Amino acid sequence: MLAFVVRNHELRAVRKPLPKLRKGWALVRVHLAGICNTDVEILRGYHNFRGTPGHEFVGEVMDVGGERHAKKIWLGRRVAGEINIGCAALGFRPVCSFCRRGLRIHCSRRKVLGIVSHDGAFAEFLALPLENLYTIPEAVTDEVAVFVEPLAAACEILSQVRVSAFQKAVILGDGKLAQLIAMVIASTGVPTMMYGRHAEKLALARRNGIKTQLVHDNRKDLEKTAAHGSFPLVIEATGSPHGLALALALTEPRGTLVLKSTFHGTAPIEPWSVVVKEITLVGSRCGPFAKAISLLRAKLLDPRSLITRTFPLSEAARAIQFAQRAGILKVLLKS
Amino acid sequence: MLAFVVRNHELRAVRKPLPKLRKGWALVRVHLAGICNTDVEILRGYHNFRGTPGHEFVGEVMDVGGERHAKKIWLGRRVAGEINIGCAALGFRPVCSFCRRGLRIHCSRRKVLGIVSHDGAFAEFLALPLENLYTIPEAVTDEVAVFVEPLAAACEILSQVRVSAFQKAVILGDGKLAQLIAMVIASTGVPTMMYGRHAEKLALARRNGIKTQLVHDNRKDLEKTAAHGSFPLVIEATGSPHGLALALALTEPRGTLVLKSTFHGTAPIEPWSVVVKEITLVGSRCGPFAKAISLLRAKLLDPRSLITRTFPLSEAARAIQFAQRAGILKVLLKS
Repeated sequence: MLAFVVRNHELRAVRKPLPKLRKGWALVRVHLAGICNTDVEILRGYHNFRGTPGHEFVGEVMDVGGERHAKKIWLGRRVAGEINIGCAALGFRPVCSFCRRGLRIHCSRRKVLGIVSHDGAFAEFLALPLENLYTIPEAVTDEVAVFVEPLAAACEILSQVRVSAFQKAVILGDGKLAQLIAMVIASTGVPTMMYGRHAEKLALARRNGIKTQLVHDNRKDLEKTAAHGSFPLVIEATGSPHGLALALALTEPRGTLVLKSTFHGTAPIEPWSVVVKEITLVGSRCGPFAKAISLLRAKLLDPRSLITRTFPLSEAARAIQFAQRAGILKVLLKS
Repeated sequence: MLAFVVRNHELRAVRKPLPKLRKGWALVRVHLAGICNTDVEILRGYHNFRGTPGHEFVGEVMDVGGERHAKKIWLGRRVAGEINIGCAALGFRPVCSFCRRGLRIHCSRRKVLGIVSHDGAFAEFLALPLENLYTIPEAVTDEVAVFVEPLAAACEILSQVRVSAFQKAVILGDGKLAQLIAMVIASTGVPTMMYGRHAEKLALARRNGIKTQLVHDNRKDLEKTAAHGSFPLVIEATGSPHGLALALALTEPRGTLVLKSTFHGTAPIEPWSVVVKEITLVGSRCGPFAKAISLLRAKLLDPRSLITRTFPLSEAARAIQFAQRAGILKVLLKS
């Protein structure tokens, strides 16, 4: 099959055999894959990952390892897939305390699709345990379903914080994850504001019913913004080390600050401001696929406005360069 | 009266008139005052405070402004005092949204005893609104009651986090606040461990029933410590910028990290580790006096083992130098 691997900070096309299937694992033919900022970070060396990146996908089950009954159920199904592979599916016994609690996402021995020790979706085929797969309803097209993974990550906030208890919320950042988060928060009815640096991305958010505020990346403007007033719920999704300080400044005393950015590197914070304002910071990563699929099936939000361009899989190397240009939102790869 | 003020990074003795009393405010004769790390930070320039520091005290009400009925109730009472003075007591109308919610601690116009714009306890007398005062029961001696303020700060953790739901907890730091926190956490029955750098301070914690672990401040030892395993509840009370990174490393996925250190300055953190582990960080400051007093009255803990030395108030300048020496815990000033 055609697959792309990370070499010298680029994607390189290779020919590989199909992934071998363990019992209870599915072979999935990838229809569409999405490029995420994490993929760009991986090109830069994040996790020292040298396999096939890509963790946002929609595809079709082509084979199932071992289980004849499971094969009957799953063959031909259109699926999205949870990216964390827990120790049960990897054959470790006994399973770890996190897997026992149903927290595969935090399994201490996990592999992560396209990120940690397991080949991902920038290929014609990938393999995942059946327990990671979610069936996509017929009414949800591939173009919509490819957003299930990042949308689930946005929905994780709803399972961590009682969002509807807040009178207003602000999202820092106007990139593709920030846009999905804004849609999810706004879907709860909480007045939602987006602070971002890109006029055209903010315009898109406004078309989706979000209020926006343009922030220039200079000290004076940031200070002016921080003085704007403060918010009981702030979500940091800038993907940049500079976002955290502004996010802390915008969070009111006893407020909640959700961290969504996973850029690699350090950010300086002033812990005393967290202490004196008694802020609660909540790290938030992967989320509930079922919730994301139900939002999409009910058409409570439509992520398609985020698609900037779709490339054929064979042009993945060019696509990931394109995805890093200014003003670009979601770039897809079509097999 | 005799009072000490901050001048050129030292305490200097001055003679001052008694504080003037607004209606509903009390004049308190200070019996004992405690020296806190925040006082040392103030000497170093924290908050640019140039008045009289000191916010841990026990004293006696000598006068009450304006209200004859209140005078009858309060005169002669032994009291400890909450340090945040809200906008109602300061005469601002309307009061701010935090004061309306009962969160005087986060009043946007607050003054803070001995820290922000209001003279504190390193003096013969101080003034506080009656609403800030708590009566000390007869069974609680001055030497115990002077710990009410820092003990309340330790108890704040109990009002923010359901400590009893955790299987174990670790406290980073072995200073005086860390020791009080360890006592409070251990009083809930949760197995409690203290990681610290000072053998003799850890020995004190062990005498109070806390398990301890000596950590040397070098990269290798810190990495070894971080690998020790991880904790569902971590409390950072080192008072140092280095504590935060180790605290994050020791916190298990989905764990809770309470921040108690209020040193001034920045600390580098890796936000992605907060995100990937979905850690909840909780800033924690001043706490419930009633809870602290009830713990002391019931003799559920005894803070007197933390007293290293008591100086007469007249030697406050020497006392705060002494308090900064290695191995010293609580230093008191007696009027």
